Amino acid sequence: MATFMDVHHGLNGITAEQLKEAHDADLAIQAEEGVTFEHAWADPEAGLVYCLSEAPSAEAVQRVHERAGHRADEVHKVPLTV
Amino acid sequence: MATFMDVHHGLNGITAEQLKEAHDADLAIQAEEGVTFEHAWADPEAGLVYCLSEAPSAEAVQRVHERAGHRADEVHKVPLTV
Repeated sequence: MATFMDVHHGLNGITAEQLKEAHDADLAIQAEEGVTFEHAWADPEAGLVYCLSEAPSAEAVQRVHERAGHRADEVHKVPLTV
Repeated sequence: MATFMDVHHGLNGITAEQLKEAHDADLAIQAEEGVTFEHAWADPEAGLVYCLSEAPSAEAVQRVHERAGHRADEVHKVPLTV
């Protein structure tokens, strides 16, 4: 398992409710891919969403997001944390 | 106070020690700007570092990073969190 930060672009104007719905859609299926989404942060002005997860691979993170209907634009393995 | 995610580019090959040194340099002065850095995550392959903070403004976040010698390339207010 490793830690990943993924980034979604173009979500300008995203609301708290939309962020929660998207996150809940990930949570509903994440176990099937061995992924645990821990947090997500959104900047509605810039249209950016950052998601932090523990997962077996970047591909597993992306599979959850794709199946939930919101493919990530970037998935970064972040092995260093402070 | 608000939550901010800032991003540093071009840090390819950053090590755990370098990340900790940079984070410690922020922590040493952050109180002077009313900022609390909570976590940082680094992708050494892509050269990206993400920093999460609580701060009075994006400018205060940037002032800490600048004074510590590592200006951020992006500072995003992230009012939505799950």
